[in-house]
Amino acid sequence: MTSSQALVSAYWAAAEARDWDAFGRLLAEDVRYELPMSRERVSGKAAYLRFNAEGFTTDWHLTVQRIVADEGTAASWIEMNDAGETYPGLTFFDMADDLIVKITDFWPEAYEPPAARAHLTERI
Amino acid sequence: MTSSQALVSAYWAAAEARDWDAFGRLLAEDVRYELPMSRERVSGKAAYLRFNAEGFTTDWHLTVQRIVADEGTAASWIEMNDAGETYPGLTFFDMADDLIVKITDFWPEAYEPPAARAHLTERI
Repeated sequence: MTSSQALVSAYWAAAEARDWDAFGRLLAEDVRYELPMSRERVSGKAAYLRFNAEGFTTDWHLTVQRIVADEGTAASWIEMNDAGETYPGLTFFDMADDLIVKITDFWPEAYEPPAARAHLTERI
Repeated sequence: MTSSQALVSAYWAAAEARDWDAFGRLLAEDVRYELPMSRERVSGKAAYLRFNAEGFTTDWHLTVQRIVADEGTAASWIEMNDAGETYPGLTFFDMADDLIVKITDFWPEAYEPPAARAHLTERI
């Protein structure tokens, strides 16, 4: 049995390598990919491979910051570097039968903190 | 021993109840809270209790969507409802000695998807 941790680790390694064959072997045929903040969905392995291979053609690179995994679900935090910009990607995974069946991605953006709470925080 | 899963579950229950005493009992004295996207940090339990009690005075409510936990770390996905708006909150936790020692929060915002990949997705 492949652990959730190993599946997510292999997922990001294959993405970074643009090894879409290896990437595809980690996915269920009916895998679902969702981006809640842009309300986008991709359904099925073939469509999701196309989305990745065709949708992002810049020289991006990712590094895994953290993978948290239990039985059947996982979450990861990566840093994406693309055209000199670095930003985090946060992903929740569902697994079944040693394959990834659902991926939910969040790409938060930088923002200015509310001035009203400036006395309660420091800047990093 | 309190599991990471139980700690995070209790953390969100105490926050929703505004039970800052119970909330504080889950935190290490030197707990660190960070918001990478606004580059804010709060250091120490007393300061973090103040940040929560004083920083957010609207009638917000949260529901836990998911907690992923392993030994010593966890990630959660909540939905926050505040003044009629609902948005997700994504949090990574570090634990030590049955207490939360670090909390990293992300609050992604909605955005319009790039038109160039519209043919690769459906809208949800």
